[in-house]
Amino acid sequence: MVQRLSAEARASALRELPGWTEMSGREAITRTFTFADFNEAFGFMTRVALVAEKRDHHPEWRNVYRTVEVVLATHDAGGVTVRDIELAGAMDVIAAAKGG
Amino acid sequence: MVQRLSAEARASALRELPGWTEMSGREAITRTFTFADFNEAFGFMTRVALVAEKRDHHPEWRNVYRTVEVVLATHDAGGVTVRDIELAGAMDVIAAAKGG
Repeated sequence: MVQRLSAEARASALRELPGWTEMSGREAITRTFTFADFNEAFGFMTRVALVAEKRDHHPEWRNVYRTVEVVLATHDAGGVTVRDIELAGAMDVIAAAKGG
Repeated sequence: MVQRLSAEARASALRELPGWTEMSGREAITRTFTFADFNEAFGFMTRVALVAEKRDHHPEWRNVYRTVEVVLATHDAGGVTVRDIELAGAMDVIAAAKGG
């Protein structure tokens, strides 16, 4: 099973993930993405959903029109693992990608 | 502009929408859908996203693996309108539809 990261390892990983922060009151990391409109926001979610399903590691997320609030944690490990750090990085790449 | 429903009209509309309830502390309606897995949950969201975009009326929703919590309200009207009732009905039809 994948190991839960220590507080130090989490902090170190987050330094490489600008925009992501530790969630208060819970061992998880969070970021809110803001897009131009619903089309872009849901397009992002769709691309992430395919990645998440392939990896069998899924985000908790809330969408309100053009914003997507994401929370990542690994339930089985009771905290943040390398799987969350990797999914966070993949989400950043997808969010930064422009179509066309 | 579409009219905000009165408390009586909201209650009457909700009698036709089993599973939907008034949100506490906010003039909105809510339902939590539970599916077999993430594939089904996100498939539901994708179908609903197309309907929402076409109608230019979007849900607030939160997805955690196989559950989708939905909140519907009409921001411009400051409450629940017929657009929310109609979208709720469309979501119920999509959730009840089986593929294959």
